[in-house]
Amino acid sequence: MTFQWPVRIYWEDTDAGGVVYYANYLKFFERARTEWLRSRGLGQQALQATAGGMFVASSAQVRWLQPAMLDDALQVTAQVTHLGRASVTIEQQVLRPSASQTAPPILCEGTVRLGWVHASTLRPARIPDTVLAVLTAP
Amino acid sequence: MTFQWPVRIYWEDTDAGGVVYYANYLKFFERARTEWLRSRGLGQQALQATAGGMFVASSAQVRWLQPAMLDDALQVTAQVTHLGRASVTIEQQVLRPSASQTAPPILCEGTVRLGWVHASTLRPARIPDTVLAVLTAP
Amino acid sequence: MTFQWPVRIYWEDTDAGGVVYYANYLKFFERARTEWLRSRGLGQQALQATAGGMFVASSAQVRWLQPAMLDDALQVTAQVTHLGRASVTIEQQVLRPSASQTAPPILCEGTVRLGWVHASTLRPARIPDTVLAVLTAP
Amino acid sequence: MTFQWPVRIYWEDTDAGGVVYYANYLKFFERARTEWLRSRGLGQQALQATAGGMFVASSAQVRWLQPAMLDDALQVTAQVTHLGRASVTIEQQVLRPSASQTAPPILCEGTVRLGWVHASTLRPARIPDTVLAVLTAP
Repeated sequence: MTFQWPVRIYWEDTDAGGVVYYANYLKFFERARTEWLRSRGLGQQALQATAGGMFVASSAQVRWLQPAMLDDALQVTAQVTHLGRASVTIEQQVLRPSASQTAPPILCEGTVRLGWVHASTLRPARIPDTVLAVLTAP
Repeated sequence: MTFQWPVRIYWEDTDAGGVVYYANYLKFFERARTEWLRSRGLGQQALQATAGGMFVASSAQVRWLQPAMLDDALQVTAQVTHLGRASVTIEQQVLRPSASQTAPPILCEGTVRLGWVHASTLRPARIPDTVLAVLTAP
Repeated sequence: MTFQWPVRIYWEDTDAGGVVYYANYLKFFERARTEWLRSRGLGQQALQATAGGMFVASSAQVRWLQPAMLDDALQVTAQVTHLGRASVTIEQQVLRPSASQTAPPILCEGTVRLGWVHASTLRPARIPDTVLAVLTAP
Repeated sequence: MTFQWPVRIYWEDTDAGGVVYYANYLKFFERARTEWLRSRGLGQQALQATAGGMFVASSAQVRWLQPAMLDDALQVTAQVTHLGRASVTIEQQVLRPSASQTAPPILCEGTVRLGWVHASTLRPARIPDTVLAVLTAP
């Protein structure tokens, strides 16, 4: 099942166009990825402390389909679509669920490729086995 | 010639990884696009007031190649690669020039497709001729 | 009883010092104020639509006492301390609860004075009676 | 003479109220403080590397007087008003200069107290003499 995380839209997220600023969807993506890992027992501080590294975005494709607005209660998904030895690719959507709709409209969707890097050197490295095990757990 | 705009990295741009937060490069992209239009006489407020609409991002592809750091003095480029009746596609790079290098390293590069929308309805519309004229001027 | 709202710390909130960036506590304050009003039936969009105005910060005093970190699960409080005809003053704290402590440490505390302004002119105005009633309800 | 630094308002700085989001003025304050130190030869990275610490905000008082808008070309000031052994207090203003006005309106003003902390422990410490010398230079 696809992981979902709720995101509420506050003034800080919007811009003078009356909608959510385009870069902020990448924040929402990252919150969902972080919570997905936390739901599997991996906090970001612990990742650095025990695994000695962190994930950094190496590439992304994003489509903004419909604007999100102040007060919106959204859901953000995260699902692994490819797992390599040094990177993982995650597909994400920002949805606006509503009581009246079975299929909530997709406001934004994207694919983010994360590479594993050493915490100090920031150089690419193989994903540690302990982290891999978490990513591949059912 | 490709438009360039300087961006300085402050504490606000960085994250606990010691580098610039990945979503913030889209802010830098947007600053360079805004200044490119301003350099051609088009302010964002004026766009809304006189042309009755605004550009909103509809899709983007981004590659993060090297991390930017606190205090970095970067250059951000913006260049139109495709111009349609209702959208424009812009290629952008974030570079770190240095005295010793002829070719500054590319820290981040991306392609952003912007659609024109009515300011009030936020619905897609044809780019007004006055705006088109500015975009296609040499 | 003082209103409380949970805030989780993500990468977006931190800076290269390894802690939460100082301005972001004002975002957390604003989230708690927004949710306090929502808990009383007042959404921000509805405020503008039905009451024709909005609250804007006119002054604040903030003290940063201890740094918040990545992954922290904080609580943010909001409590009215003064209510005038055109403004409301709210006292707020950012706390880090923990299982082992009866009194969670205060990371940041502040007092924010909000003035009511017309949505279109942004000029100060008397707080509408419907909004006042919500603010003063027990 | 009071140090001044220009700040341009972009979409990223605004919110759905059509004005600059209140917390962002603290970003502008911090940019001006950073550039004031840089103008005296002190970069933020160098501060950490050579002086082994950094300044963190311990308290602030802020007054928001008039809203800043998209496209605004502002000036942000920074001036030391008190210098202790472990902290420095800086007075700051955000101004909107215009050709027609001799006294530009103040949009926002504040006082920020910064404490010096060790880079690793984040504990308060005496400001190193080399940093003090820079702060007190005429």
